[in-house]
Amino acid sequence: MKLKFLLSLLLCGLIMQAQEDDKAVKSIYSNSLSNGMSYAWLDHLSNNIGGRLSGSEGAQKAVAYTKSELEKLGLDKVWLQPVMVPKWVRGAKETGHFISKDQRHDLNICALGGSVATPEEGLISEVIEVQGIQELKDLGPDRVKGKIIFFNRPMEPTLIETFKAYGGCVDQRYAGAMEAGKLGAIGVVVRSMNLRLDKYPHTGSMTYGDLSPTQRIPSAAISTIDAEALSEALSKNPVLKLSFKQSCKQYDDVESFNVIGEITGSEFPNEFIVVGGHLDSWDMGDGSHDDGAGVVQSMEVLRLMKLSKQRPKRSIRVVLFMNEENGLRGGRKYAEEARLNQEKHIMALESDSGGFTPRGFSFDCSDEEFEQVKSWEPLFKPYLIHYFEKGGSGADIGPLKEDGMVLAGLRPDSQRYFDYHHTSIDTFDAVNKRELELGAATMASLVYLYDKYGLQNKMSTPIKN
Amino acid sequence: MKLKFLLSLLLCGLIMQAQEDDKAVKSIYSNSLSNGMSYAWLDHLSNNIGGRLSGSEGAQKAVAYTKSELEKLGLDKVWLQPVMVPKWVRGAKETGHFISKDQRHDLNICALGGSVATPEEGLISEVIEVQGIQELKDLGPDRVKGKIIFFNRPMEPTLIETFKAYGGCVDQRYAGAMEAGKLGAIGVVVRSMNLRLDKYPHTGSMTYGDLSPTQRIPSAAISTIDAEALSEALSKNPVLKLSFKQSCKQYDDVESFNVIGEITGSEFPNEFIVVGGHLDSWDMGDGSHDDGAGVVQSMEVLRLMKLSKQRPKRSIRVVLFMNEENGLRGGRKYAEEARLNQEKHIMALESDSGGFTPRGFSFDCSDEEFEQVKSWEPLFKPYLIHYFEKGGSGADIGPLKEDGMVLAGLRPDSQRYFDYHHTSIDTFDAVNKRELELGAATMASLVYLYDKYGLQNKMSTPIKN
Repeated sequence: MKLKFLLSLLLCGLIMQAQEDDKAVKSIYSNSLSNGMSYAWLDHLSNNIGGRLSGSEGAQKAVAYTKSELEKLGLDKVWLQPVMVPKWVRGAKETGHFISKDQRHDLNICALGGSVATPEEGLISEVIEVQGIQELKDLGPDRVKGKIIFFNRPMEPTLIETFKAYGGCVDQRYAGAMEAGKLGAIGVVVRSMNLRLDKYPHTGSMTYGDLSPTQRIPSAAISTIDAEALSEALSKNPVLKLSFKQSCKQYDDVESFNVIGEITGSEFPNEFIVVGGHLDSWDMGDGSHDDGAGVVQSMEVLRLMKLSKQRPKRSIRVVLFMNEENGLRGGRKYAEEARLNQEKHIMALESDSGGFTPRGFSFDCSDEEFEQVKSWEPLFKPYLIHYFEKGGSGADIGPLKEDGMVLAGLRPDSQRYFDYHHTSIDTFDAVNKRELELGAATMASLVYLYDKYGLQNKMSTPIKN
Repeated sequence: MKLKFLLSLLLCGLIMQAQEDDKAVKSIYSNSLSNGMSYAWLDHLSNNIGGRLSGSEGAQKAVAYTKSELEKLGLDKVWLQPVMVPKWVRGAKETGHFISKDQRHDLNICALGGSVATPEEGLISEVIEVQGIQELKDLGPDRVKGKIIFFNRPMEPTLIETFKAYGGCVDQRYAGAMEAGKLGAIGVVVRSMNLRLDKYPHTGSMTYGDLSPTQRIPSAAISTIDAEALSEALSKNPVLKLSFKQSCKQYDDVESFNVIGEITGSEFPNEFIVVGGHLDSWDMGDGSHDDGAGVVQSMEVLRLMKLSKQRPKRSIRVVLFMNEENGLRGGRKYAEEARLNQEKHIMALESDSGGFTPRGFSFDCSDEEFEQVKSWEPLFKPYLIHYFEKGGSGADIGPLKEDGMVLAGLRPDSQRYFDYHHTSIDTFDAVNKRELELGAATMASLVYLYDKYGLQNKMSTPIKN
């Protein structure tokens, strides 16, 4: 009888717990959808500030704006964490064209981030089209020397998760110029990382590795329509000449900041849960999806927590990282300081895959921790959140990784992401208010659960402030 | 030993079956995403034909175009099924405004489908705002007489599935004029069925029930921004006057057609599986999401089946229904003829919720049939299809319903649908190619499974042609 009684007490407790969680999650979603701030914040970030490349005036304005908005939320602390960041400037609008059979075809072209400029009068040369870096290497220096290399391997349309298609192609953009430079090429053009055919070139980061300055060659992206046209023209006329011109420049590093806000935990103030996105963006659009969405969603998580009136047990931080796009300096800096201060991070969640309808999360954690989060899946079902998989999290939170903590990435629907990514059309009008708000609520719900339950089988130690 | 042997044979068979299904579904998705026709068809339907309201020239062109495209697919039969449809014409662009404290506010306004016109010089009257039909009835005829009734209950933003929010509001649009007419009002304006604030009015169907012609009053939708402005102005000035003008007209019914194509089954030719969408649309946009998407996805299902080279066991039909929007005549006609011809329909699937990323299906069927389809869920997981619920299917296939058959509706992500629904911005550029193609593949996969396995526990009878 006694055992039966204890068991029913336990069961009762579990049911009440589940009801409490259901109610809390429902309230989070309802608040985000009916009185959320994320969309208005994004409107300002995109339309009043615009592009926020590290070291730019836009980036500095975004630091000041988000700090002041976080201060209005009544958090316990809001501060700036200084970090030195690279400064690269695009310069005049890039131009390019090829001429085939007396027909001039103008290119929609943009320099890749970190590329060197062309000579002032531009580059001109014959073009060799390759489908990837191995094909380039197989050509050897004799064939490559003096040429412009055209990387044209498209993203694979049959992959359902478009980030996998991106992962299968982006080496051309990131390392193409380095490899072509080693073989004596004079320039590189890359097919944009885009699943559809359109006229927009997609910029993005690239590296020269440890190449000497003389081997560093200009590198640019062309639109997918232009890539198709160039490939077709080359098939008819392999000796056609392509020319392009860009005046981008790398400057000395400058000071910038991560923006951080915190609600200090009531029971375990030295256990930290981080939620974040990156404040910098590329320079051609407003960076509304990449990653304005992640920034405002992360801010909204803390606003929603404040609304609940209940102080979290653990310390919850929003971190708006600087310089994800071309250096990751903010992410590294935050992790470095967290270690110096012996802060115990138990969970970090990043939103950096666009402000589209959320489908779930991917988790970088142990099997045991993954089991815990899988047990929460039913709580998310009413919100059509179904994707709980092991996988990558986010670039900025990667440096925080330690055994026994959980890194997570919000996974929104990915079908439209590469229509906008790193282009001039990554703008506010491409973001749907409800989709953005659902993402914020999904993040806040996960943070609520980690705050309430901590990590599976890990003892939390209360520390007096 | 013998039993063990038989069991392993059975197990082997099941595993091979599952592998075969995996492969078939993968091939369906890959084909839709890499060489699909749905997007090109939609481009033509939207950009070369445009709006396709029943009885219009656009509707007739769409009949001819889709018939000719189906004929190119090499189906066994393609034919037109005649059906008489209503013909309602909007006439000149509607205008409206209100004046409050000497400030004139012009309205973005459109007649509801089926509404009568205003007098040539327009209507003008004081306005009574209500939140719904009950509130109107509570006012009674004395207060309503001679007034314009303004229905302003907004869609509920906290509902995750936006069709539920629509369902909770659309009675105002559908029955508002009928109820207000009974009480002696002279006109109705309705807040558009839209979750966001913007300037686009949303048309849609309405009814006068059996009201006499003299009680039939003009009814129009205004944009959500205008609804907010009107409500605010009324709160300051309850006797302000609103005026609007529309010249729409109902004509006699005209002949139109359902467009039908069939691949005849190899084993059970008199068991039919129907996949469809509706060919008609409202008149203000191109009807790209509603329901151009469903039309081209349904056509693509049959194209994908032809590609597989294997003749289906059952007869698979694509039915492009005419007149879903303002009469449902096509859906009724198809069901009527199916019964006359004693065709045994085992499953019908409609896509009429927009061309957005598919999440799954809702099923109108018995528990037993639902169990069968749930057993197929794992096959869809790699494509992020997770939504298998009981619920409504589609308006056009509703009349087909009989015991022992399955009706299903494709359920795409619904967050953006009511941004476009029945507006001038339901156009081709609002449809993403991959999202559309994923929907077509999801439908084709379900049809493949129903064709292969038939209905749970139902004996199929082979019939010689």
